[in-house]
Amino acid sequence: MRLFNAAKSSQTWIKLEVCSFHASYEKRHAYGILEGGNVTVCEGEIFRDPIKKDEVVSLSEIREYLPVVFPPNILALGLNYYSHADEWQGPTPKEPILFLKANTSIIGHRGTIMLPNMAPDEVDYEGELAVIIGRKAKNVPEREASNYVLGYTCGNDLTARDCQLRRDEQWARAKSFDTFCPLGPWIETELDPSDVKISTRVNGRVLQDSSTKNMIFSVESLISFLSRCMTLLPGTVIMSGTPGGVGFKRNPPIFLKHGDTVEIKIDGVGILQNSVAVEQ
Amino acid sequence: MRLFNAAKSSQTWIKLEVCSFHASYEKRHAYGILEGGNVTVCEGEIFRDPIKKDEVVSLSEIREYLPVVFPPNILALGLNYYSHADEWQGPTPKEPILFLKANTSIIGHRGTIMLPNMAPDEVDYEGELAVIIGRKAKNVPEREASNYVLGYTCGNDLTARDCQLRRDEQWARAKSFDTFCPLGPWIETELDPSDVKISTRVNGRVLQDSSTKNMIFSVESLISFLSRCMTLLPGTVIMSGTPGGVGFKRNPPIFLKHGDTVEIKIDGVGILQNSVAVEQ
Repeated sequence: MRLFNAAKSSQTWIKLEVCSFHASYEKRHAYGILEGGNVTVCEGEIFRDPIKKDEVVSLSEIREYLPVVFPPNILALGLNYYSHADEWQGPTPKEPILFLKANTSIIGHRGTIMLPNMAPDEVDYEGELAVIIGRKAKNVPEREASNYVLGYTCGNDLTARDCQLRRDEQWARAKSFDTFCPLGPWIETELDPSDVKISTRVNGRVLQDSSTKNMIFSVESLISFLSRCMTLLPGTVIMSGTPGGVGFKRNPPIFLKHGDTVEIKIDGVGILQNSVAVEQ
Repeated sequence: MRLFNAAKSSQTWIKLEVCSFHASYEKRHAYGILEGGNVTVCEGEIFRDPIKKDEVVSLSEIREYLPVVFPPNILALGLNYYSHADEWQGPTPKEPILFLKANTSIIGHRGTIMLPNMAPDEVDYEGELAVIIGRKAKNVPEREASNYVLGYTCGNDLTARDCQLRRDEQWARAKSFDTFCPLGPWIETELDPSDVKISTRVNGRVLQDSSTKNMIFSVESLISFLSRCMTLLPGTVIMSGTPGGVGFKRNPPIFLKHGDTVEIKIDGVGILQNSVAVEQ
């Protein structure tokens, strides 16, 4: 079952700033539905009952992709792929390893990842399937978990490894610098998340390449677990963990630098692309 | 300098659900200004330019205290009092120890702290001065930090010690269960936070008793530090750390149980009172 029962199949969501030639929407933000390269602008309760309007924008004319949601919380999972738990060289987790990212770290597709002045030298990518919660969830059994999903998007759980591994007691700062949570390009509502390919490229070179079937805890078990920890409000983002191949475990290590391009590709969703720059 | 230059001295803010005898406000939430036991209902941009209305409610008639803000992020500090760093038996921090609490953990004055089914046995109090950010702050020098403060309130950084110390890799779950961040009773805009008494009582017994002068990092230095980590949006809550005397370090340990009453008192602000109950 999907959240939007009324939705047409292969319906995809995109949050966009409507192109300036649409005078009536100029400088307004809008949601839309993407079908066949065109975005139909929508209004109404986006998470429940979107209403299509007459305005249609070609995907090629979108000026700026906004973050797909402005979440109440970003919940993230550590070591949720066998290959990443292996390279981390610790035991395989028995329960999901929860951490939080600041909501202010969100940027959209094509936004710029800023290497923070405070910790610019060891910024690492983590390509992840991001789950967007569609309705309020509390104490949800695993078998009902998918009913609470709005859809899926590509996420990048950027991490300043020096803060995470040496400078700080907790991961919070390492994971929460501004621009450290790119999400996009849109929310795909019709994805089966149990076995989709996920890969990360930096300047075109494939550095992570796995499938969501290699998760230690499935999307449904994560939703169930997290909903027993806390209320998941609509718009909550769950970063479901990253596969092996992260930069700091390579020899020599790979860290992001000014001018790089990072892409997270998830089959059935799309490609999230972001450039990297030094903070001014 | 204070955020509200136009504010009368000793002005205090309260977020309230206006009493039902005010027919025009019935079932609406409202902000107000507390002066001499009465609350004047306000409208407009609360964080910048509140406008007093004609309606006045007696403090004794308030039916429910809502959380003073619904924050974009709750930023919290570990080990920021010498006495708590001592009882923790680790080195004194050289930089602030940042962690995050989920925004969904907020409750107001007189709300009920729920002992979560997942970890009900070692829930501990941490009385704290909570800073409410009033305007967007990024890379703020310490000497200008107070310009970005809306005001202060009492906070309780509840923590499931079993999750924090033994079960989990990170503190996130331990600190983020629903109801684990009581804030209130109101926001005091006219406080000098450099040396105010702060105490915690459980069922009337004083268990923490200190002053904010014993902080390792001052409020101003915390704001400056955090604003270099990330953008602080209006409504951001900074939980500035707890003094010594927490329950799990006592002999025998003290953990909260069904029926307890916890009070956090900060001189010049007020008393935040919450009851404790087992989650149903």
